[in-house]
Amino acid sequence: RRCGRPEVVFGPGKLPGEVAEISRALVQAGQRVLVTRATDEQYQAVVAELPEARFHPRARCIRVGEPTLSPQKWSVGVLCAGTADLPVAEEAAVCLESFGRTVDRVNDVGVAGLHRLLGEVGRVRSHGVLIVVAGMEGALPSVVAGLVQRPVIAVPTSVGYGANFSGLAALLGMLNSCGSGVTVTNIDNGFGAACAADDILRLGEN
Amino acid sequence: RRCGRPEVVFGPGKLPGEVAEISRALVQAGQRVLVTRATDEQYQAVVAELPEARFHPRARCIRVGEPTLSPQKWSVGVLCAGTADLPVAEEAAVCLESFGRTVDRVNDVGVAGLHRLLGEVGRVRSHGVLIVVAGMEGALPSVVAGLVQRPVIAVPTSVGYGANFSGLAALLGMLNSCGSGVTVTNIDNGFGAACAADDILRLGEN
Amino acid sequence: RRCGRPEVVFGPGKLPGEVAEISRALVQAGQRVLVTRATDEQYQAVVAELPEARFHPRARCIRVGEPTLSPQKWSVGVLCAGTADLPVAEEAAVCLESFGRTVDRVNDVGVAGLHRLLGEVGRVRSHGVLIVVAGMEGALPSVVAGLVQRPVIAVPTSVGYGANFSGLAALLGMLNSCGSGVTVTNIDNGFGAACAADDILRLGEN
Amino acid sequence: RRCGRPEVVFGPGKLPGEVAEISRALVQAGQRVLVTRATDEQYQAVVAELPEARFHPRARCIRVGEPTLSPQKWSVGVLCAGTADLPVAEEAAVCLESFGRTVDRVNDVGVAGLHRLLGEVGRVRSHGVLIVVAGMEGALPSVVAGLVQRPVIAVPTSVGYGANFSGLAALLGMLNSCGSGVTVTNIDNGFGAACAADDILRLGEN
Amino acid sequence: RRCGRPEVVFGPGKLPGEVAEISRALVQAGQRVLVTRATDEQYQAVVAELPEARFHPRARCIRVGEPTLSPQKWSVGVLCAGTADLPVAEEAAVCLESFGRTVDRVNDVGVAGLHRLLGEVGRVRSHGVLIVVAGMEGALPSVVAGLVQRPVIAVPTSVGYGANFSGLAALLGMLNSCGSGVTVTNIDNGFGAACAADDILRLGEN
Amino acid sequence: RRCGRPEVVFGPGKLPGEVAEISRALVQAGQRVLVTRATDEQYQAVVAELPEARFHPRARCIRVGEPTLSPQKWSVGVLCAGTADLPVAEEAAVCLESFGRTVDRVNDVGVAGLHRLLGEVGRVRSHGVLIVVAGMEGALPSVVAGLVQRPVIAVPTSVGYGANFSGLAALLGMLNSCGSGVTVTNIDNGFGAACAADDILRLGEN
Amino acid sequence: RRCGRPEVVFGPGKLPGEVAEISRALVQAGQRVLVTRATDEQYQAVVAELPEARFHPRARCIRVGEPTLSPQKWSVGVLCAGTADLPVAEEAAVCLESFGRTVDRVNDVGVAGLHRLLGEVGRVRSHGVLIVVAGMEGALPSVVAGLVQRPVIAVPTSVGYGANFSGLAALLGMLNSCGSGVTVTNIDNGFGAACAADDILRLGEN
Amino acid sequence: RRCGRPEVVFGPGKLPGEVAEISRALVQAGQRVLVTRATDEQYQAVVAELPEARFHPRARCIRVGEPTLSPQKWSVGVLCAGTADLPVAEEAAVCLESFGRTVDRVNDVGVAGLHRLLGEVGRVRSHGVLIVVAGMEGALPSVVAGLVQRPVIAVPTSVGYGANFSGLAALLGMLNSCGSGVTVTNIDNGFGAACAADDILRLGEN
Ligand SMILES: Nc1ncnc2c1ncn2[C@@H]1O[C@H](COP(=O)(O)O)[C@@H](O)[C@H]1O
Ligand SMILES: Nc1ncnc2c1ncn2[C@@H]1O[C@H](COP(=O)(O)O)[C@@H](O)[C@H]1O
Ligand SMILES: Nc1ncnc2c1ncn2[C@@H]1O[C@H](COP(=O)(O)O)[C@@H](O)[C@H]1O
Ligand SMILES: Nc1ncnc2c1ncn2[C@@H]1O[C@H](COP(=O)(O)O)[C@@H](O)[C@H]1O
Ligand SMILES: [Mg+2]
Ligand SMILES: [Mg+2]
Ligand SMILES: [Mg+2]
Ligand SMILES: [Mg+2]
Ligand SMILES: [Mg+2]
Ligand SMILES: [Mg+2]
Ligand SMILES: [Mg+2]
Ligand SMILES: [Mg+2]
Repeated sequence: RRCGRPEVVFGPGKLPGEVAEISRALVQAGQRVLVTRATDEQYQAVVAELPEARFHPRARCIRVGEPTLSPQKWSVGVLCAGTADLPVAEEAAVCLESFGRTVDRVNDVGVAGLHRLLGEVGRVRSHGVLIVVAGMEGALPSVVAGLVQRPVIAVPTSVGYGANFSGLAALLGMLNSCGSGVTVTNIDNGFGAACAADDILRLGEN
Repeated sequence: RRCGRPEVVFGPGKLPGEVAEISRALVQAGQRVLVTRATDEQYQAVVAELPEARFHPRARCIRVGEPTLSPQKWSVGVLCAGTADLPVAEEAAVCLESFGRTVDRVNDVGVAGLHRLLGEVGRVRSHGVLIVVAGMEGALPSVVAGLVQRPVIAVPTSVGYGANFSGLAALLGMLNSCGSGVTVTNIDNGFGAACAADDILRLGEN
Repeated sequence: RRCGRPEVVFGPGKLPGEVAEISRALVQAGQRVLVTRATDEQYQAVVAELPEARFHPRARCIRVGEPTLSPQKWSVGVLCAGTADLPVAEEAAVCLESFGRTVDRVNDVGVAGLHRLLGEVGRVRSHGVLIVVAGMEGALPSVVAGLVQRPVIAVPTSVGYGANFSGLAALLGMLNSCGSGVTVTNIDNGFGAACAADDILRLGEN
Repeated sequence: RRCGRPEVVFGPGKLPGEVAEISRALVQAGQRVLVTRATDEQYQAVVAELPEARFHPRARCIRVGEPTLSPQKWSVGVLCAGTADLPVAEEAAVCLESFGRTVDRVNDVGVAGLHRLLGEVGRVRSHGVLIVVAGMEGALPSVVAGLVQRPVIAVPTSVGYGANFSGLAALLGMLNSCGSGVTVTNIDNGFGAACAADDILRLGEN
Repeated sequence: RRCGRPEVVFGPGKLPGEVAEISRALVQAGQRVLVTRATDEQYQAVVAELPEARFHPRARCIRVGEPTLSPQKWSVGVLCAGTADLPVAEEAAVCLESFGRTVDRVNDVGVAGLHRLLGEVGRVRSHGVLIVVAGMEGALPSVVAGLVQRPVIAVPTSVGYGANFSGLAALLGMLNSCGSGVTVTNIDNGFGAACAADDILRLGEN
Repeated sequence: RRCGRPEVVFGPGKLPGEVAEISRALVQAGQRVLVTRATDEQYQAVVAELPEARFHPRARCIRVGEPTLSPQKWSVGVLCAGTADLPVAEEAAVCLESFGRTVDRVNDVGVAGLHRLLGEVGRVRSHGVLIVVAGMEGALPSVVAGLVQRPVIAVPTSVGYGANFSGLAALLGMLNSCGSGVTVTNIDNGFGAACAADDILRLGEN
Repeated sequence: RRCGRPEVVFGPGKLPGEVAEISRALVQAGQRVLVTRATDEQYQAVVAELPEARFHPRARCIRVGEPTLSPQKWSVGVLCAGTADLPVAEEAAVCLESFGRTVDRVNDVGVAGLHRLLGEVGRVRSHGVLIVVAGMEGALPSVVAGLVQRPVIAVPTSVGYGANFSGLAALLGMLNSCGSGVTVTNIDNGFGAACAADDILRLGEN
Repeated sequence: RRCGRPEVVFGPGKLPGEVAEISRALVQAGQRVLVTRATDEQYQAVVAELPEARFHPRARCIRVGEPTLSPQKWSVGVLCAGTADLPVAEEAAVCLESFGRTVDRVNDVGVAGLHRLLGEVGRVRSHGVLIVVAGMEGALPSVVAGLVQRPVIAVPTSVGYGANFSGLAALLGMLNSCGSGVTVTNIDNGFGAACAADDILRLGEN
């Protein structure tokens, strides 16, 4: 199995029974499992088969099996502005943890209240990679990229209304970021950001 | 003539001779003139007729006649991130000056280098209205709105390339600003921002 | 607490119990509360904890605590064309009232029946700021801006169908307004317009 | 030849010599000719072959041959807000005249200065069909449709910048018009509006 | 009451009781009523108050009161390709009938099976105005406009999927129609087409 | 060399000398050459090196070397509505001829003048594959697909203005075609249509 | 009945009873029936009338009556990357089978795991036509077209989220395919791809 | 100066003399200079002042001063499909070299000719980071990400025509990549990709 990561199952469009069946087969084959965008119904079906399964409701993830934790040179900072972006930030954080990474969640640091972010600059600079999750105008990654010299992975969310166009505003904002070194994932793609951060940290290890 | 402002002529699509002719007629009728989006050729034609005409090349404005300056309770801060946004910021500033307003230009305060903006907070807070001009991801107004309790007029510019889509990214970013009290003009519309700021300041005067 | 305004809670995505809990904590901390985009269920949960809570169903707002009313130099005119735009207009009006502002609601003044608007010109001109709410083609702010010399805050609504594209038609119309001094908020953002109007009126007070 | 109209040639993409050759052949076959979107170079080539050719530079039309004028029951009012929209309004007017229709040009009636339009209500109501040409936010047709009980053909123009998106703002505005009885042509399509008006007036004649 | 038409009520967003109440008041004031986009629930509420109310389920219209029918010089042809576009075509037809017009419904004439349309050319040419309703690629108005010399009002519908983008494909197709004399309404706006056709026919009557 | 076709060089962005050099090298390696989107300057450079080179100006193609012609079971019909679409139709036709295919050009068959197309039905039905090129509303492929039982390859062109959006209207129209068996290429991609038609005809040969 | 195919009924928007009634009438008239986008409810209604009806739930198709199978020179390969695209791939496959074609389903060949596709090259090359179904970035047809010299019909699906915009990303990717000979259908249009493939194979038969 | 990189000047919109002046000042202040999107005219002005300046015409970059080269643990692979994407790939490569990084250019590896890419798999896997530059449908990053376990930075280019919409097709394709660990920059932003790759490699060094 590739990269020391669990096998990842994308939940949407699969019946609870299907998710449970796929998970059971993977565990039987000796693999750990991570289900993303999972529902509570899917979790009930999985845990009935695999009692060691754990549900992370905010992240909408089911995990079966724990990674072997080894001492990490670098941790990942996952930043977001507040409640509404938390599901995507948590998806990134939980996926990283299931890859065996150390995660530091820095919630509640939006650009409209800069002092909170500025109060955390030291903490933010201590991480090897930053995942910056933001909806609405998606300005946070630009500000963060100006404060650190580390890779910044920007994740736009679909949080907003009207001329937000389901995350398009945040996506365009991030692609046009004037902060150097920012790269961008699809809207709401916390999982993809976790994969990219994991690939980056692996580089520092060998 | 409405509002104590000069008569405003929109330059594009008018021949130099036409601009000169319109300007001459207005001056003859006792009015001051402001030509926006003017070219050097249009200026040459105007100044040949009206030697008192002045050209502001960066702002692309021609002015004929000076406003009566009265002591002002409030000034307008015009903020932008740098060279590329200057033509729009200057259009706003020169228009305001032709309306008799006091303007403070705060250039070079982008979100990717926050310390410069943070070093000017006192100055920024001293103004009655802020016009915040930004291209690329258009994040500056959100940050400014978090620092002041004054009206913030956000002007997106068409500066950028690729997924900027000629200013759409900045426009959407500003419309979705999480900073409260931000309102937005059309892309590159420094003149419109100046009119709105002037209308606002007039309120504080009577 | 900033600006003499109540603390504002954005209702969508929060469970009734969560809204009640946040509200109770804020009131305990001595603050007034304004919940926007609130549902009846959220109100029931809040009023069970805080009997002084009031619901404004058309505006979809919950208010807890009254502002100290002081004599106002200027009032705000909130204009809209009719029934369908009322929720957004009411959101603006109720938010302003919770900020302690005096509001004059001028409903039923659409551009297809100009005589009604023309019959109210005096009333419209008496206000310090105009908030003009419109869906469909969003033409009302242009017409109003031509009649007054006051700041006009245009709020596009998502009212319409087909090529309206959920408010895009009204938004683009307002951004392209030929009326000078018009600035624009996000689609359906009555709250944002209220904040901007409040910031503007504060200027006339000190 | 269909409908008593001249043969219409679309100028763009045709060399001056080609336009001249096509025109000559049509005249030889006994037809009148109308070239739309014509350039001065195309006109020079045509008039060298056909000295009776006339050029309408603002409308960008070449006409060869005059329609037989008969007394008309109804005339067409062609309204627009000002200079920038004139080429499209003139295209509509000149095409109509080449179809033998009587046209009344009502320029300079924009929504930001309603009094001029209101001062012409009687004149506007006297026509059988109204062609209303507008760029920027395209609000004029809604206002006109509220004043008359006649068919209103709305022609959006590509005049504007930024969030105008080359006429999209005006087009969407007109399609969403709250004025009843408004129908819309393609952006800048003065010719199409003239055809539709001509079809409508023919109905009143037989 | 304007134009000999009933008062028109737009159903969406109104409670059944509200529609019934508005209708009752209008009838009491001596007017006929037409409710568009009405639901069965709204009809039940109306008919309980006004037993003479009639429901047209396919057209989604409620009518109260009959127009005085006078002999008509011209009728209106309402064409569409088939089942899916019928609600919009019927909205146009029922609205026209409530305005006292004579309507000829020509369903099942799509461009993919031209023979059916070609078999009806004489019938199509006999009408004063054609309303052509089409979804998907919206090609029917171009073909019809090539067959008649009458005004063609094209109504795009939101019928389709994928790259149809809820009627955008049909709308753009119709705006770009190579058939001369075609004008266009908003997507699904059968009512607007009926108003425009009624305005046109009135011209032939006086 | 793959498929018995010449090597194809895409002209745009290559200097005349570069095109000549690439062509010479290919001919030296025993291959035939087809340059698409070629300019006259590129042709002059190629013919100076390779006197047997031929230029097809309308198709904007340079060909060096002739295909071995073998008797063909099926020919390809290339249909378009008129002058403006000819460059794309010719690109398809010339590419097919350079692949050794027999082509029948059916120009001047637009949907607004159906009789011309209907007059050619027998000829259209005689071909193995139809390439249907159309700009503006792109309705021709739907009509053709209703008349034949052969594969129809629809090629939208960028011909049009305003709400045509550089071929988007025609593209969407064709993707939504109600004619069964229609598939679509990129806007202006006559070359791609020729490749697809060639692949299809090869199937009938072995 | 045209082309030896069953009569095709488009399920959406038709009541179960309507589908059953249409199907019964067609069978009575001696035709086979294919209902696409059918629901289980529609199937229950059909099978109650016509016990020989069969439901294909993944393809969402109802079939009544079997085609006469004749030995086929060519088969059709239907390729897709996995579970989520299966409904569209199955629609194509089942439609083809109801047209009497032989289909080879090659599922689970995505571009992110090339080895699976590369392991099937021989099988893929053995078919006369390839239908390649893909969502997300829609890259599969380009890769397949590089491996075969057969017609490739690309079918984008609406599978994806965020910047996928309901299939737009896959559609644009396929239209811009650098693989020669690729043509494209509407998003999710497995039925259309089956019709095109059937038209192509017929060519190889006569 | 931040990050051991040269000072970066964005060329567009600056006069040759301005670029020369800025460069001279930076060199005088002891810094190296990198001008991106530079023209030959700008280079002539710079080299006249600073004879050590070097121009990279394909990359459109001017460099003044060389980085101190230290042995590198990791190199960067810069992949692209061919000629048209080279300017963007070269911008990335030259920027990286000016940051002191070792670059391996792998041109001519497109998805339509997979064998070339597959022939380079070992080489591609040897690098620490991959920058994958692609226009048209932008499928290359997905394929590369399936072959390596390293960070993949995808750079869409504006190469293409028609439904490419100036790079939008490639951008959307990359954002929807099914290859895990792919992050994306703005269209044509080779400079941004170089910054991100440099930030990533720095992580492996300390
Ligand atoms: N209706 C609204 N539209 C836009 N923003 C709002 C609205 N209501 C509240 N907000 C913003 O949302 C913040 C509260 O968000 P939250 O902490 O999630 O409840 C407030 O401070 C406002 O800035
Ligand atoms: N300004 C215009 N806008 C749109 N269509 C036009 C215009 N002028 C001419 N046409 C159409 O183009 C046809 C002539 O095209 P052509 O044969 O290329 O000259 C006429 O019959 C009209 O239908
Ligand atoms: N899945 C489908 N996607 C697109 N068009 C379809 C589909 N299924 C059937 N059709 C078309 O719809 C027609 C039947 O429509 P209807 O008469 O409404 O049932 C058929 O002749 C096909 O041309
Ligand atoms: N090719 C490029 N694309 C995007 N941003 C760039 C590029 N080149 C330079 N920049 C940014 O532009 C800044 C310099 O802008 P300026 O001060 O206008 O020369 C640099 O610090 C970079 O962050
Ligand atoms: Mg940085
Ligand atoms: Mg503020
Ligand atoms: Mg005003
Ligand atoms: Mg009217
Ligand atoms: Mg006609
Ligand atoms: Mg067919
Ligand atoms: Mg191929
Ligand atoms: Mg990978």
